[in-house]
Amino acid sequence: MINLSQIKIIPVNNFPSIYESDRGASYIVDLLFDLAKVIDGDIIVIGQKIISKIEGRSVKISDVKPSETALQLAKEVNKDPRLVELILSESIRIVRSAPGVLIVETHHGFICANAGIDRSNVFGDGIFLKLPENPDRTAMEIRERIKSIYGLEVGVIISDSFNRPWRKGSVNVALGVSGINPLVDLRGTKDDVGKTLESSMVAIGDEIASAAQLVMGESGGIPIAIVRGMRPDGSDVGWQVLKRSNTEDLFR
Amino acid sequence: MINLSQIKIIPVNNFPSIYESDRGASYIVDLLFDLAKVIDGDIIVIGQKIISKIEGRSVKISDVKPSETALQLAKEVNKDPRLVELILSESIRIVRSAPGVLIVETHHGFICANAGIDRSNVFGDGIFLKLPENPDRTAMEIRERIKSIYGLEVGVIISDSFNRPWRKGSVNVALGVSGINPLVDLRGTKDDVGKTLESSMVAIGDEIASAAQLVMGESGGIPIAIVRGMRPDGSDVGWQVLKRSNTEDLFR
Repeated sequence: MINLSQIKIIPVNNFPSIYESDRGASYIVDLLFDLAKVIDGDIIVIGQKIISKIEGRSVKISDVKPSETALQLAKEVNKDPRLVELILSESIRIVRSAPGVLIVETHHGFICANAGIDRSNVFGDGIFLKLPENPDRTAMEIRERIKSIYGLEVGVIISDSFNRPWRKGSVNVALGVSGINPLVDLRGTKDDVGKTLESSMVAIGDEIASAAQLVMGESGGIPIAIVRGMRPDGSDVGWQVLKRSNTEDLFR
Repeated sequence: MINLSQIKIIPVNNFPSIYESDRGASYIVDLLFDLAKVIDGDIIVIGQKIISKIEGRSVKISDVKPSETALQLAKEVNKDPRLVELILSESIRIVRSAPGVLIVETHHGFICANAGIDRSNVFGDGIFLKLPENPDRTAMEIRERIKSIYGLEVGVIISDSFNRPWRKGSVNVALGVSGINPLVDLRGTKDDVGKTLESSMVAIGDEIASAAQLVMGESGGIPIAIVRGMRPDGSDVGWQVLKRSNTEDLFR
């Protein structure tokens, strides 16, 4: 799906604040089409936070009762035991822990700090947001609504900023994908000098998410960007093709 | 440096093939300005391969004599002992090794497979390319030449595609940077609801490199892309601000 003509990254400005448990994915689509001219073939990149909000994924930390395990771990990582409980409830595995750091594998299969749970850009004191339950499903719902109401074939990516080992700073990655294959497999194709590429697979879905963040910023005011000039292929493999299995991964 | 207006990612088409040991960085600048309209404030993203070629970083594998260490390690990872010797000569540390996998820390401080040494898109049998000796220095030379000859203030990023733990597929990252700070530190700033951000640092240099790859592709025909619409800040901190030190990193 890599293409060689110009691409535009367009911020969707003036998106209104989304409050917790607002409405469904259809609400986001309607707001988007009020504000932006979406055209056939666009890829819509949506920050996970507004998805979590409309899906009612917010939790009042004072309502959380930490388990014995959470109390123990909270001491080790020097975090609020209730937050640790919340993180554990969204996780299937602890990948690394140290003072100030708790990296887990979420039930989706994402490996990230704090199971992606965060309180920035969230209204209200002591309110934390969990990641969307199933970002691939939500991406598909949004794409299907755009197809059925507006007759447009688009790609949809739900993104979040993740930190990495070895390199400082977060980069946006794809948590949910519909309408494009986020992994371009070039193995077996020829390079420019006629040699067969042996191992090249490009995480184009993550690169599109990173490109979108150049206009979205981190403070949340621009929760949606449009990437225009690529060709979505209608694929519905979802983010799962980007997931490295345990056996392939030397870093779990 | 994040900004909220539209950004364009423009491929530099028809770039001629670069042969090994061709000329210096000035040659790339002259070719670029023959082919593309660069304007003030553009960020020029250049794949490392053409930089390595003009800097004479190619090695004929048949000229390499493997050491005893390389012979041993080659058995473990099931790679050509001469290639392993070459990888070790560019490395300061082995991070992980397994059959088919050799992840090292290079003398620059990059953690990547095979010290970034590769033979795709390289003319000639048995010719491998090492990463540029000092990508920050080369990025600065290119930026300074653009300033002195053409009077334009630009940013320059030298990029390569790296694989990651946990997620399949490579993404482009910045190996060398001049004219922009590749790490945006938002710690202490306010989010949209007035809360202070505690830990947000964005690896914008890596995200720009990833955005560029949407038009560069992997097969090398488009070795340069122009990212237009951001504002380089003239910073010269280089890629080093993206490097996690040993003590900060739980994954070495």
